[in-house]
Amino acid sequence: MPATPPSPRPGRGGTGSTRLDSYVDRYAARTAGMTASEIRALFSVASRPEVVSLAGGMPNISGLPLDVVGQAIDELVRSHGTTAMQYGSGQGDPHLREQICDVMRLEGIEGHPDDVVVTVGSQQAVDLVTRIFCDPGDVVICEAPSYVGALGVFKAYQVDVVHVEMDEHGLVPSALREAIAHVQAAGRRIKFVYTIPNYHNPAGVSLSRERRPEILEICREADVLVLEDNPYGLLGFDDEPSRALRADESEHVIYLGSFSKTFAPGFRVGWALAPHAVREKLVLAQESATLCPPSFSQMAVSSYLTSHDWLGQIKQFREMYRERRDAMVEALDDMMPAAARWNVPTGGFYVWLTLPPGLDAKAMLPRAVTARVAYVPGTAFFADGFGAQSMRLSYCYPTPERIREGVRRLVGVIEEELELRETFGAALPSREAARSGYDAPGSELA
Amino acid sequence: MPATPPSPRPGRGGTGSTRLDSYVDRYAARTAGMTASEIRALFSVASRPEVVSLAGGMPNISGLPLDVVGQAIDELVRSHGTTAMQYGSGQGDPHLREQICDVMRLEGIEGHPDDVVVTVGSQQAVDLVTRIFCDPGDVVICEAPSYVGALGVFKAYQVDVVHVEMDEHGLVPSALREAIAHVQAAGRRIKFVYTIPNYHNPAGVSLSRERRPEILEICREADVLVLEDNPYGLLGFDDEPSRALRADESEHVIYLGSFSKTFAPGFRVGWALAPHAVREKLVLAQESATLCPPSFSQMAVSSYLTSHDWLGQIKQFREMYRERRDAMVEALDDMMPAAARWNVPTGGFYVWLTLPPGLDAKAMLPRAVTARVAYVPGTAFFADGFGAQSMRLSYCYPTPERIREGVRRLVGVIEEELELRETFGAALPSREAARSGYDAPGSELA
Repeated sequence: MPATPPSPRPGRGGTGSTRLDSYVDRYAARTAGMTASEIRALFSVASRPEVVSLAGGMPNISGLPLDVVGQAIDELVRSHGTTAMQYGSGQGDPHLREQICDVMRLEGIEGHPDDVVVTVGSQQAVDLVTRIFCDPGDVVICEAPSYVGALGVFKAYQVDVVHVEMDEHGLVPSALREAIAHVQAAGRRIKFVYTIPNYHNPAGVSLSRERRPEILEICREADVLVLEDNPYGLLGFDDEPSRALRADESEHVIYLGSFSKTFAPGFRVGWALAPHAVREKLVLAQESATLCPPSFSQMAVSSYLTSHDWLGQIKQFREMYRERRDAMVEALDDMMPAAARWNVPTGGFYVWLTLPPGLDAKAMLPRAVTARVAYVPGTAFFADGFGAQSMRLSYCYPTPERIREGVRRLVGVIEEELELRETFGAALPSREAARSGYDAPGSELA
Repeated sequence: MPATPPSPRPGRGGTGSTRLDSYVDRYAARTAGMTASEIRALFSVASRPEVVSLAGGMPNISGLPLDVVGQAIDELVRSHGTTAMQYGSGQGDPHLREQICDVMRLEGIEGHPDDVVVTVGSQQAVDLVTRIFCDPGDVVICEAPSYVGALGVFKAYQVDVVHVEMDEHGLVPSALREAIAHVQAAGRRIKFVYTIPNYHNPAGVSLSRERRPEILEICREADVLVLEDNPYGLLGFDDEPSRALRADESEHVIYLGSFSKTFAPGFRVGWALAPHAVREKLVLAQESATLCPPSFSQMAVSSYLTSHDWLGQIKQFREMYRERRDAMVEALDDMMPAAARWNVPTGGFYVWLTLPPGLDAKAMLPRAVTARVAYVPGTAFFADGFGAQSMRLSYCYPTPERIREGVRRLVGVIEEELELRETFGAALPSREAARSGYDAPGSELA
C-alpha cells in the first residue's frame, strides 16, 4: 500500500492529472480499468502527522528486533552474498519454500515445497492467478465487501465481480450457492471464488468452522475453484489458527500466504500454493512478469525464520494488535451514537463500521479529514458502488491513545452530520447506482 | 533468469508435464502463450558443473565487495529498518529515483525523479508497459533477433511481433520504415518499437550514433512509441556510454534501465522513465501488480550507491567482461570452421554466431550438451521460427579458461555435424515454418 506521497515536483505546476494525456488513445482496453483507488487518494492527506489515520493497513513493525535482523542479513551477505544477489529460480528459493510449508502446517496444510510459488507479496499472487485464469468478461465471485487490492486486479483484467453476502460468520453458504447458480444459469463462466476466510479485510469477520466444509462442497459441486487469501490467519487474538480451506481440499483450492503481516511487508514476499498443473502455469507467469522474485528478499526472510523466534514474535504482534483492537472497540462503545453498528474482530487489523441511516461515509470523508481523522469509505471495497454507508477502521498502526483520539474526532464529525440532517431534513446522501444484479449487503456485517 | 532447477520431488514419479492438466479448459486465452522458453528448459542441464554453459545471461558478481555491501545493509536495517521493511510508494523510493536520474545522466538523459517508476527488474517494466499499451492482436516491432524475455511478455499479452532486420550497426532504418508502413497499410496498430540499442541481447551489436536520430525520426513521423531497453549501456569495453535515444526525445520514448548488470540482479531493481501521463498509468499498474516494489531492495541498492564507488565497480566489471569477450573471440578465431560467422561485441555479454550453411543449432543442442557445452539456439530470439542456423554464446559468467574449453567442445560438435552432412548428404535441417511476412535475417548479423 503506497505510504509515501509522491515527491513534490519543483518547477512544474500541478500534477499530471490536470493535464491532457496525449497517449490516451494508445492504451490497452484494460487500462481503462486502472484508476487510482480511494485508499490511494487518501494517503497524501492521511500521512500528515496531525491526522489520526484509521485508514491504512500498514502493520506496526516497530517491535521487530532490528539488531537481530541487521546481523542476520549482514551474515547472509558475507556467507551467501553471491547467491542472494544473483538471479534465482522463477518459482522461488527452494529452502524458503520448505519453510513456507512449515508455516502453512500451523493451519493444517500439508503442502509440498514443489507446489509453492514465491510472489512479490501476495498481491502479485492475486495478479498472477487472475492472469492465468481470467479472460475479459469472466466472472469472479467475491465477498461483500472484499479486499480493495484484489478488486483492483480483477478490474485491471476486465473481470466482472459478483459480490456475495457475508454475515458475522463469514460468507453465507446459501447466498454463495444462489449466486453461482444465477451466474451459471446466465451462461457465464465463474473462474474462482475469491475469499479471505480469516479476520477479513475489510469486514473483520471470520468464516466459521461449521461453514468451511459447506463452502468447499458448494464450490466442488459447481466445479468452481477457490482462491483462499490468508494474510492474517496467524494473527488471531484468542484462538489457535483456524484450519485452512486448503487443508481439506487440495485440488479445488489455490492458497495465498504472506510474510507482510507476520514479519514485514518491505521484503514483498508472499506465495501461492497451487495444484501442480496450476503451479507450473504460475511459474511461467512469474518468469514473464519478473524473471524471478528477488533472491535477496527471499533469503533475508529465510534467515530471519532460521535465526529468530518468529513464532514468539507473532505472539507479540498478536498481543499488540489485541490491545489496539480493545482500544478501538472500547472507544466505539463509549462514544459512537447508538444507531451506528460495528463488529468486534477476533484477529487481524479491521473494524467494519456502518453509519446511522442516511449518512454517507464517502461524502463525509473531507469533513473527517478536516477534523484530522481518516478512514476508508466502504465503497472502496465493492465493485458495484455499494458500501457508502460503511467504512473500514484500522487499528493496526496507531497507538491505543491515538486510536481513542481518532474515534473521538470521528464521533464529532458523525454527530455534526446527524445534527445537519436533523436541521435540514433527510435528503438522501449521494450514492452511486449499483451495477450488479446481486444484493451486496455490506451494511449487514456489523 | 531461473538459475536453480526445480527441487526434486520425493515420492512422486515424474514431473507435472507428463500428467494431464485437469485445469486446461479453465485457463485464460493468454495462458496458451505462456510456454517454457528454450532457455528455461536448458538450465537444468546447463547448470551441471561438468557442462560449460555459454547459455545463461547471469552477470558475474563475484567481484562485488561483500563486506562493504553487508555492512551497508546492516547499517540500513539498524538506522532505517522500520522504513526499509515497511510498505513503500507504488512508484518507488524517492531517494533512489533521484539516484537513478544520476545514473541516466551518464547517457545524456535529463530525467526527473517524478517520471521514474521503480520495477521488479526491468523485466517487470517490459511487462507493465505492455500491460498498459497492448490489446490482443496489437503489433510490437522488435529487432531480429530480440530479447527472449521481452518476446515472452509480448506472447503472454497476445501481441503480434513483427521483426525488423539488424546489421552490424544495429536496427536498419530503411527496414524499420518499411515494416511500419507495411503494418500500418494493413490497418493494424503498432503500439511501440522495442529496441535494445546498446550491446544487444542476443545479437551483440549496437545502434550506431549516425542511425539514432534517424530511428527516432521514423518513429516520430509514424507516431509510434519507442521502448528503449538498456540494461548493458554502461558495460562498453572501450568507449564512453552512448547517448540514449531518450536523451534526444522525451515524448515518444519510454526508457528502461536496471541495476542487474551494473550492481546485482538479486535485488530485482529496474526502472522505467516515461512521459508523465504514461508514468501515472505505470504506477497504477505497479500497484495492481505488487502494491509496491520491495522497499528493502530499493534502499539496499540506494545504500550501495551512496556508500561505494559504484562507478569504479562498473569499471572493474567492464574489464572482466572484456577479458572474457577476448577469450571467446580468440577461441572462435582459432578454432571455428571458416564457414561459421560471428560478430565481435564492443560491450555487454553476447556473441551471435551463425553456423555453416545447413546446420541447425536447435537440432544440434542435445549433441552439444552430451559434449558438455551449452548455448541458446537462435530460434529462442524470434517470435516466428527463424534463427535455427544461429546461436547465442554468452561470455559473461564462465572464466576465460572455461570459455576456451567451451568453444573447443562446441567446435568438436560442429565438425562432427559437418562430417555427417558430408557422409550422408545435405538433408536440410528441420525448421519451423515462418509465420511472419517479414524477412527476419538473423543470420545476417555476424
